[in-house]
Amino acid sequence: MTSSTNKGKVNPDLINERNKCTFNTLELTHLLDGDEVKTKERKSRESFFLDDADLKTEVPIEYLSHKEKYEEAVRKACIVFRKVQQLQNEGKAGVDNYREILGGQLGSALLKDGHPLTLHYVMFIPTLMGQATIQQQAEWIQKAWSCNIIGTYAQTELGHGTFIRGLETIATYDPKTEEFVLDSPTLTSYKWWPGGLGQSANYAIVLAQLYTLGKCHGIHPFIVQLRDEETHEPLSGIIIGEIGCKLGMNTTNNGYLGFNKVRIPRTNMLMKNNQVLPDGTYVKSPSSKLTYGTMIFVRVVLVQDAATYLKKAATIATRYSAVRHQSQIKPNEPEPQIIDFVTQQHKLFPYIATCFAFQYSATWLWELYNNVTGELESGHLDNLPELHAASCVLKAVSSADAALGVETLRLACGGHGYMTSSNLPTTYGLVTAMCTYEGENTVLLLQTARFLIKIWQNKTNVTNLPTVRYLQNSLNRNSPFEKTVSWIISALQQTATGKIDLANRHINERVKKGEAYEDAWNNTSIELVAAAEIHGRTFIVETFFSTVQKLRKQTSVELGTVLSQILELYAVYTILRSTGDLLRFTRTSSQDIELLQGWLEELLAAIRPNAVGLVDSFDMRDEVLASTLGAYDGNVYQRLFEEAQKSPLNSEPVNKSFHLYLKPFMKSNL
Amino acid sequence: MTSSTNKGKVNPDLINERNKCTFNTLELTHLLDGDEVKTKERKSRESFFLDDADLKTEVPIEYLSHKEKYEEAVRKACIVFRKVQQLQNEGKAGVDNYREILGGQLGSALLKDGHPLTLHYVMFIPTLMGQATIQQQAEWIQKAWSCNIIGTYAQTELGHGTFIRGLETIATYDPKTEEFVLDSPTLTSYKWWPGGLGQSANYAIVLAQLYTLGKCHGIHPFIVQLRDEETHEPLSGIIIGEIGCKLGMNTTNNGYLGFNKVRIPRTNMLMKNNQVLPDGTYVKSPSSKLTYGTMIFVRVVLVQDAATYLKKAATIATRYSAVRHQSQIKPNEPEPQIIDFVTQQHKLFPYIATCFAFQYSATWLWELYNNVTGELESGHLDNLPELHAASCVLKAVSSADAALGVETLRLACGGHGYMTSSNLPTTYGLVTAMCTYEGENTVLLLQTARFLIKIWQNKTNVTNLPTVRYLQNSLNRNSPFEKTVSWIISALQQTATGKIDLANRHINERVKKGEAYEDAWNNTSIELVAAAEIHGRTFIVETFFSTVQKLRKQTSVELGTVLSQILELYAVYTILRSTGDLLRFTRTSSQDIELLQGWLEELLAAIRPNAVGLVDSFDMRDEVLASTLGAYDGNVYQRLFEEAQKSPLNSEPVNKSFHLYLKPFMKSNL
Repeated sequence: MTSSTNKGKVNPDLINERNKCTFNTLELTHLLDGDEVKTKERKSRESFFLDDADLKTEVPIEYLSHKEKYEEAVRKACIVFRKVQQLQNEGKAGVDNYREILGGQLGSALLKDGHPLTLHYVMFIPTLMGQATIQQQAEWIQKAWSCNIIGTYAQTELGHGTFIRGLETIATYDPKTEEFVLDSPTLTSYKWWPGGLGQSANYAIVLAQLYTLGKCHGIHPFIVQLRDEETHEPLSGIIIGEIGCKLGMNTTNNGYLGFNKVRIPRTNMLMKNNQVLPDGTYVKSPSSKLTYGTMIFVRVVLVQDAATYLKKAATIATRYSAVRHQSQIKPNEPEPQIIDFVTQQHKLFPYIATCFAFQYSATWLWELYNNVTGELESGHLDNLPELHAASCVLKAVSSADAALGVETLRLACGGHGYMTSSNLPTTYGLVTAMCTYEGENTVLLLQTARFLIKIWQNKTNVTNLPTVRYLQNSLNRNSPFEKTVSWIISALQQTATGKIDLANRHINERVKKGEAYEDAWNNTSIELVAAAEIHGRTFIVETFFSTVQKLRKQTSVELGTVLSQILELYAVYTILRSTGDLLRFTRTSSQDIELLQGWLEELLAAIRPNAVGLVDSFDMRDEVLASTLGAYDGNVYQRLFEEAQKSPLNSEPVNKSFHLYLKPFMKSNL
Repeated sequence: MTSSTNKGKVNPDLINERNKCTFNTLELTHLLDGDEVKTKERKSRESFFLDDADLKTEVPIEYLSHKEKYEEAVRKACIVFRKVQQLQNEGKAGVDNYREILGGQLGSALLKDGHPLTLHYVMFIPTLMGQATIQQQAEWIQKAWSCNIIGTYAQTELGHGTFIRGLETIATYDPKTEEFVLDSPTLTSYKWWPGGLGQSANYAIVLAQLYTLGKCHGIHPFIVQLRDEETHEPLSGIIIGEIGCKLGMNTTNNGYLGFNKVRIPRTNMLMKNNQVLPDGTYVKSPSSKLTYGTMIFVRVVLVQDAATYLKKAATIATRYSAVRHQSQIKPNEPEPQIIDFVTQQHKLFPYIATCFAFQYSATWLWELYNNVTGELESGHLDNLPELHAASCVLKAVSSADAALGVETLRLACGGHGYMTSSNLPTTYGLVTAMCTYEGENTVLLLQTARFLIKIWQNKTNVTNLPTVRYLQNSLNRNSPFEKTVSWIISALQQTATGKIDLANRHINERVKKGEAYEDAWNNTSIELVAAAEIHGRTFIVETFFSTVQKLRKQTSVELGTVLSQILELYAVYTILRSTGDLLRFTRTSSQDIELLQGWLEELLAAIRPNAVGLVDSFDMRDEVLASTLGAYDGNVYQRLFEEAQKSPLNSEPVNKSFHLYLKPFMKSNL
């Protein structure tokens, strides 16, 4: 199936693995995409971009200088945007599906280490659409839509991240000229991190503390021109540049931005929600909660991205493990495929299962997001706290586990996983960033914990809150061990409840001892984070379970069996990560843990023949994997060797440093 | 103390932290170095290298192209080697302490991302000294010692890593010409990974399968010239180059090497242990186990390196956490230092404690290594298996935990930890590599498990084997919870014993069911790895405990108290990582876990005022930390901003890509 796009003689080990597979990988691909039509659409989009010769790079970017990397990225970014516009003109793309087109999988194939213009579509235009008035939209949307201006979104500052209220940039209204004066009062108030801000964008949405008539009204969005539209020179009072190299995303052109009394018209404040009138009067919107949705949206998307990055790494590591031979299981036998070592299976298969688990949770969260934002439009806010809590914990757990997964899979490829050409290091660079941006994970887990503790303390009726419904069963001890996923879910729910209850008791005890509630909260926060984490994982298992129950009604028997096995594997693996809590908070016995361990080992053996088939079903083109270790044909060693030839150091037999430094040194002691 | 080398006005938060410290940091620095004289010697060595203006780089290397990075690294490497020779000439350095001079701390300060010539001193010369005959040493050592030739050590192949017996490179003896013919029969037999092999070294020790008189005698070392001594051109039949970019160590110039029937004289086989006579007769040494020691040596060194890298990251993250203000603990109070969040303390302090734990284990292992290799010289091999098992597990546990620690500390610095200028990404690149090289961690843990199971099955007398002595207490259930480190050690020992016993039972059960022993071993390997891991951690806690007991006799009361606190923290943190096993294999109750958690929280609070003092005591110069976030003066934001200015993208207001690509695109839709 994928072979059409992946020429070359296939490694016999992989042929063998594919022959062993017990299900139809194409059926699973369609299921993962949605249906056959969606698979076709995706593949045609992939061809549209990936077969474009202008989007290929001869020298791998890792060999270029930082500046050259950026220049090559801008070249490609413009071609990519032009192609996106072409799709729009053909009615194949709209304002809201840029991410669908270029999110995770395809985007990272085109611009391996970040796209310098991406925030234009992902944050600049959406913010205009969400926060600008009709008049403002009339002024700006067309220009933005046809890319006559390129914008970014400037929120985070050098001294301020997740805690938005702490931002320092100031926008003071001057009623005399009907302008805002933007100013950076301190070094820590400089904007820092926005993608494309360095040398690329010429406009930005800037978040700043609004002052009018001597009073501060908190953070508001302003549209600010940064660079001249003709010359691209920074405008007067704009101090701008890029922030420098990072662990990854080195072609996103993250920038810094300072304001030295920069004046913008009053009408450049985005006023859909709150307004400043010409005389300086501040008019507050009654529905300021509406601004909330956009922040949650990005977290929803990240859960899907976590699944995508993990699929990529799982495909690479699984194919490599089928091709690589090493060590011995029995003396005098040939070196086995490393995928036959049970310790290796233990590194690979649970993360294959996790790809499904995250994808299904992402789908669930996406539906909840759409429902709740629909309700918001009609003024119904009841389900917002749960959406907020669910998006926090799912973003935190999925990004943390995906990062751990990608790194585990990289290490499972031994030394070759350390090669840039494996694409595992770059993938890790992208996925670990997700643990920090759009809300640092520990902070997000504490937000979810706050929601859980509030429900627990107030004994809120949770019947209509799907993520916390289990809390109503209170502390009923769960039933004796059964070898079913239902049992695992109920045991996990019991554990989560127990941990929430215990953390709550510890807060109360501290308060009783005289601590302020906030100090008691802080002093209990290690347990609160742990409670939120297991709550999140429990919900992921539950969602995986209910999804597979639904899907099995439509799949072949063979595929249904495999789906159940990977569900079971994810469930058993997850609960075995928490044996301590399981023993503490449920009636589970030490013997039950042994049975769970045995079940895990059975599942690894059951999945073994289908491992390559499962990752084949993710249907990632070689250009998407971009990996010497993960290509469809499995010709790992040839690719490693060919890729090494691309190093500019290998283009000449003797590097000049020999004559300049090495020879004089070596001869000096003769 | 460190301030003398770190100019600039110190951040008031750090002054405040330093004033709070309850012990004398200088006393701890001396203790960690050994004594005051050793501290002085270290600092003088650091000045000798770090104050040399020629060893400074204007543009940070991350902005250079791959080729430029290499050329700059060779320039510096030659200066560093010349300075090492100067120290040798002054009698301040010998053949055996190159690593002491340039290991972890100082080495990574001079050549941030790897030294292209380092294997010359670290592996080439030591192998000559260990494996060459007296005549061979006479021929080679002087040339190597004065760097008239530069060597590397070529063992790993494209298709073969940890499993050395699988190497494919062939050396066939030709008695007619009294030469060996080196050949690479397959692509997978190409040497791959040796540092400095790409473009730097002109000689290598090559490991190859020795064939003589039609028989294979396994892996032997050969000295092979790779490049012409005058022109540096690769010699005929030598296929050589670098392997390309990696996650880290991009200036180590890792290379590949293929042989097309390359002839070398018979006398180029290193023959101290085994010999091939002119007529082709193979003479086996009676003491081939002697070659064993060198391999173990490197693992011993890595435990120390794990401590060093972790110290670096802990210093950076702790100082940053004292300077960074964010969020709120109580409403209407100023944003607190993030080090006041208990979740942050939980990320930082256990890893500060781990630095001590690893350093003391490294010291212990170093002594064992010296004792056992001393015994080997006199033919006494009894303690070799324990040394092997201990070096495997300590290397595996310390590298894995140090990598996890560095990454946890990086993430604890939020977005700024993602900046290359924090030096945390580069440090992670160096430390995570240790999980793979010199024996992949899972393979090493299984080696230790093999030792443990053998002892358990044979009921070996363990009285004289310090790392496994606890196994003689068999499965006696441990005593009720006491708030002491002794209790923790005995509980951990009980747990390790329980896990070894259970894994052994599972092997036996599988054998009884008809599985071959090797299959039963493989099928139980997840449990075996876990057993070895907890065995290793138990020993690290025990060694920390006995070291602190000894040290407290010589320290001030204040320092003694702090040492005990960090010991307790490491012990409690370690046992809380294994609550599941603790509940399964000991009499510990759920309530005891609560008490342990409370103890952990008390310790975090107790250590809080001394956190900065503790990392100050590591006494790492700013040049060693090389971090915008970790400098002694804590001027984080100024440094981040100044460092960003060094990006070549910031040296011009408009990058050429605007005119070339961006402007034409933006104007095209007007």
